[in-house]
Amino acid sequence: MNTGRTWTVGVTGATGYAGGEVCRLLAGHPALRLAGVHAQSSAGRRLGEVAPHLLPFADWEVRPSGAADLAGYDVVVLALPHGESAAVAAQLPADVLVIDCGADHRLNDPQAWARWYGGGHAGSWPYGLPELPGARAALAGARRIAVPGCYPTAVTLALAPALGGGLVEPEVVVVAATGTSGAGKKAAPHLLGSEVMGAVSAYGVGGVHRHTPEMVQTLSSAAGTGVSVSFTPVLVPMARGILATCSARLAPGVDAAAARAAYEKAYAEEPFVHLLPEGQWPTTAQVLGANTLALQVAVDPDAGRLVVVAAVDNLTKGTAGAAIQCANLALGLPETTGLPLVGVAP
Amino acid sequence: MNTGRTWTVGVTGATGYAGGEVCRLLAGHPALRLAGVHAQSSAGRRLGEVAPHLLPFADWEVRPSGAADLAGYDVVVLALPHGESAAVAAQLPADVLVIDCGADHRLNDPQAWARWYGGGHAGSWPYGLPELPGARAALAGARRIAVPGCYPTAVTLALAPALGGGLVEPEVVVVAATGTSGAGKKAAPHLLGSEVMGAVSAYGVGGVHRHTPEMVQTLSSAAGTGVSVSFTPVLVPMARGILATCSARLAPGVDAAAARAAYEKAYAEEPFVHLLPEGQWPTTAQVLGANTLALQVAVDPDAGRLVVVAAVDNLTKGTAGAAIQCANLALGLPETTGLPLVGVAP
Amino acid sequence: MNTGRTWTVGVTGATGYAGGEVCRLLAGHPALRLAGVHAQSSAGRRLGEVAPHLLPFADWEVRPSGAADLAGYDVVVLALPHGESAAVAAQLPADVLVIDCGADHRLNDPQAWARWYGGGHAGSWPYGLPELPGARAALAGARRIAVPGCYPTAVTLALAPALGGGLVEPEVVVVAATGTSGAGKKAAPHLLGSEVMGAVSAYGVGGVHRHTPEMVQTLSSAAGTGVSVSFTPVLVPMARGILATCSARLAPGVDAAAARAAYEKAYAEEPFVHLLPEGQWPTTAQVLGANTLALQVAVDPDAGRLVVVAAVDNLTKGTAGAAIQCANLALGLPETTGLPLVGVAP
Amino acid sequence: MNTGRTWTVGVTGATGYAGGEVCRLLAGHPALRLAGVHAQSSAGRRLGEVAPHLLPFADWEVRPSGAADLAGYDVVVLALPHGESAAVAAQLPADVLVIDCGADHRLNDPQAWARWYGGGHAGSWPYGLPELPGARAALAGARRIAVPGCYPTAVTLALAPALGGGLVEPEVVVVAATGTSGAGKKAAPHLLGSEVMGAVSAYGVGGVHRHTPEMVQTLSSAAGTGVSVSFTPVLVPMARGILATCSARLAPGVDAAAARAAYEKAYAEEPFVHLLPEGQWPTTAQVLGANTLALQVAVDPDAGRLVVVAAVDNLTKGTAGAAIQCANLALGLPETTGLPLVGVAP
Repeated sequence: MNTGRTWTVGVTGATGYAGGEVCRLLAGHPALRLAGVHAQSSAGRRLGEVAPHLLPFADWEVRPSGAADLAGYDVVVLALPHGESAAVAAQLPADVLVIDCGADHRLNDPQAWARWYGGGHAGSWPYGLPELPGARAALAGARRIAVPGCYPTAVTLALAPALGGGLVEPEVVVVAATGTSGAGKKAAPHLLGSEVMGAVSAYGVGGVHRHTPEMVQTLSSAAGTGVSVSFTPVLVPMARGILATCSARLAPGVDAAAARAAYEKAYAEEPFVHLLPEGQWPTTAQVLGANTLALQVAVDPDAGRLVVVAAVDNLTKGTAGAAIQCANLALGLPETTGLPLVGVAP
Repeated sequence: MNTGRTWTVGVTGATGYAGGEVCRLLAGHPALRLAGVHAQSSAGRRLGEVAPHLLPFADWEVRPSGAADLAGYDVVVLALPHGESAAVAAQLPADVLVIDCGADHRLNDPQAWARWYGGGHAGSWPYGLPELPGARAALAGARRIAVPGCYPTAVTLALAPALGGGLVEPEVVVVAATGTSGAGKKAAPHLLGSEVMGAVSAYGVGGVHRHTPEMVQTLSSAAGTGVSVSFTPVLVPMARGILATCSARLAPGVDAAAARAAYEKAYAEEPFVHLLPEGQWPTTAQVLGANTLALQVAVDPDAGRLVVVAAVDNLTKGTAGAAIQCANLALGLPETTGLPLVGVAP
Repeated sequence: MNTGRTWTVGVTGATGYAGGEVCRLLAGHPALRLAGVHAQSSAGRRLGEVAPHLLPFADWEVRPSGAADLAGYDVVVLALPHGESAAVAAQLPADVLVIDCGADHRLNDPQAWARWYGGGHAGSWPYGLPELPGARAALAGARRIAVPGCYPTAVTLALAPALGGGLVEPEVVVVAATGTSGAGKKAAPHLLGSEVMGAVSAYGVGGVHRHTPEMVQTLSSAAGTGVSVSFTPVLVPMARGILATCSARLAPGVDAAAARAAYEKAYAEEPFVHLLPEGQWPTTAQVLGANTLALQVAVDPDAGRLVVVAAVDNLTKGTAGAAIQCANLALGLPETTGLPLVGVAP
Repeated sequence: MNTGRTWTVGVTGATGYAGGEVCRLLAGHPALRLAGVHAQSSAGRRLGEVAPHLLPFADWEVRPSGAADLAGYDVVVLALPHGESAAVAAQLPADVLVIDCGADHRLNDPQAWARWYGGGHAGSWPYGLPELPGARAALAGARRIAVPGCYPTAVTLALAPALGGGLVEPEVVVVAATGTSGAGKKAAPHLLGSEVMGAVSAYGVGGVHRHTPEMVQTLSSAAGTGVSVSFTPVLVPMARGILATCSARLAPGVDAAAARAAYEKAYAEEPFVHLLPEGQWPTTAQVLGANTLALQVAVDPDAGRLVVVAAVDNLTKGTAGAAIQCANLALGLPETTGLPLVGVAP
């Protein structure tokens, strides 16, 4: 399948956590070759100074992040703050594969964009969650792809089979524990090691997190009806990983066997989604650094709810791994090319 | 108020985490004097070997944990595994203040006990959550007290005002992140540092955790009607602390102002419960090692739910601090005597 | 002994980690009463916003940190960045007890000050390490006290008996693991939780850390001769605590028994220094939040070296606890008044 | 170079941390194919139960670990407790490549073996540290290889250039911070998450750690004279990684430039050893999960010592990665085949 052709890749925002993870994965990819790293504030510096783990590229100079600076690559990965991708992307040639790890091109509804992010809507691109029905066809050959947010990845894969199969009512409650890397590398006092180690805190409570409309979009699409999402992210003392606990009221007559069957059917052929054997519950450790999602489903008969727990690495399957997975699909490579399947544990 | 009288205290299960925390708090208490430490498997050893932080008592010998060994104390604190307190307690004199940190005397319903713990029900004792309506009267002068479970402490204080005030429907969803000390000191592979650091996992999913019936009991009592509880505990990489995220569907017409008013009213006079100012969310760090609970309440209008987040140290206000708080009440001491109000942060 | 008199205390730099720890300890002190909190950048804010763990004082306003703002207290604790204490202190009345948690008044040698900190030397104050020979006499009644640095506290108490007793050569090697709170609350990228969790790093290698001259001073004084100190601090993923591993070549004829005897003699009567029983090694967990230091000593016959390991909480015995301990001495209170002896573990 | 030939690999001790890491690396190796997993106590179980991160192999059955069970593989990796490899290895055919991750075949001196491990010495195999002079020649084509211990890997690479070049006296002091995975998966109370999180402790102090004789062996060989090693391991709250701080008295006339030149020369061509640019210090984060070692060297003129700090992942370059690196050499593959060069950070 791999005919030996390689594609050059430029990564902008390479000194951030998501961009750095793209670089890490490219270092092990047989067909995509990291060819340049770009960033705004650290342009001109040695990459090793600002991203010490990227040892094979440590001596590279970080280049600026303007659209002109990104010319000449076969593939451009944008790992920029939300709202900054659209302007850059608009200036890149149509035949360059552009993969946006930010939010700019994820929402279909301009009003939702305006409400949650503000400013003009850049339009929506094919949504990079290949495991959704119909997604692979849209991604094959695409030259513009919007990588999902990390929470929406976990929550959509956790709940789509239940909502799509009518197992639950369209009103879901999600509490998702997340590591600190999701907040990026900005030096805010509440993200200091001294503050986060040994501590768990809530933030963005009451439905104010910007990933909420994206979950509403994907889950409503899966359900074929409007879904309400109560979403609470919880910051926990680890660098990477999301564990999303999702629940909804069971539809009448749904039992544990029916629930399990729906999930088995949905993910039997998926290389990156693992429904664990009964009795085993996911841990973020098992997917750390891997492009995999582990999940488990249970029925609570007393409470009358379906509970689904999903574990994912926010930087890998949650962002950078998904970007590579989508690039593989867009370029006609086997979907799993160059993507780790084994978590870095313990 | 403190007339200078002191009471001797014996702690059994002193080499476990909850028992050790009782000893720690007693070291700073002006009227309760730790007079002996007991435990089963480590009887005969130097306390400092098995609980190195109890430096002032390091040279004490750990004594056995039979009822006869516990004779002569004014106060006995039982920090034993669930199911082991009842037999010991039954043999202690009626005028000794016995405080049970285990589950044996918490549930009112013998059938609930049989279903969740198995075996014969030992009966229920006054429930040691002074912040509940009517609780202080029951605890004053009591000589048998059941300390609540750590999760029920957090969840009851988080939801009782909403359920009691009819702000929400009696169907609640709780996801609670917890540190590892809640699982005790048993050397199980999944509790090894290598497994838990950098990892979040779910356990006891689907309503199977034994603290569920206790929450059903306290919340139903607060609501005046049966409450269903969907409870998922999540293990996070820290030693101490619980952050409980609790939500329920809003009753018609309830808005943020009404919700906040109910919580302000409920806790205005409570020394250990802190409703944070609007916009500030709880973190377990702020209550670490303290007998305090911090909480915040929000309304999510899109999802139509009330969300309450509560932070508590499972070993302090969640167990050992509550034991001391109850002892203070039972003995006629000021309720806050000897109890830390400031968290150990950062 | 405690006649019921109380002293008011003002803390400046109260929103930093060391200042916050002073406030925490004062909350449990029977004779010293926190009466005001001051800070530079957060003046005017609610204390609870910037130090959420100080719940009993959460509604206090943070006041400015000029010398005039500090008037009227019986005791002033300065928890300011190095180099900022001297100017403030110079304006405070001579009969106010001023305790400086910073470095400004620690070094005796103006040239050492100039080399390591730069600028004019403010002079030296009585050094607040009561466990050193002669120190208590100098601290009793003092109105100006310099609290030692956290590393020098650990290292001096670890090595003074060996150097003072001629057990080792005056050339010591120290590698000290430290939690992140030692670096303070400044939001630097390398101190982010994402960077420090799961990671250990060296910094200040090659004798460039500013605590080095202070250790040279205390150890040379203990040895009665110049001592060279090779000091490497290592940043580890925890918020609090120092574990200092110290070694030096054994003097001829010194064996394990002689070494142990010297340490037993040095610390037999010290309330805050615990020489552990043979075979037990210190952990920072056992002293977390306590004003205690745990240590152990061993002889390595193959390498011909004495090895001493000491554990201390950098914020408690390493800074704020020492400040209170010294205040107790200066004011004629029992030295242990209000100071926790039990670590917060697990 | 890769002719497309593949070799089958059996891993015994696959459910332990080192064995699991071998499996993880093999999952990404183009020429070595994991063909069977073996272990003693968990034989018969599903691999996914005991090593949940090995998702692609989760449904494999763990097979027993006797020598007969290991027949038929091209390569056998032994990841067994110390002292258990020799008996198994003795029964494997001479043409099978056997790589021992345990200590059994590392020490040259039978007396050292007897003193530190006890029992009969199994003899020594080619030592799997290719970066040592002459090592690659010995490893090419070898069919028996002893993988170095994790600490000796870090310390040998840190100090060999200095000792070999006569830059320092042959008396070294090493303090090495290590994650908990080095202690393996055994469920000991002191390795529980509750005990290790937020805590640093020393163990094996005074030269009693079993890796000491191995360091004495490698460093003496490098120095061409007997080297004394004072070694203190320190347990820190992370799962993976070693940061070794190594120092020795400078030989007369050696300055920083000479020291740096020696290290640059030693490692200029090494693909896995990175001497960082001046001013940058290693962190374990930058090598996590990678087969790389990062180091830095400094001269402390006041103390008259050379200080070298090295970071390595104990499970990757410290064990399993080294095993693969050696297998590559033994089988004539490019040395870097299938080995990650980028750390998993943050």
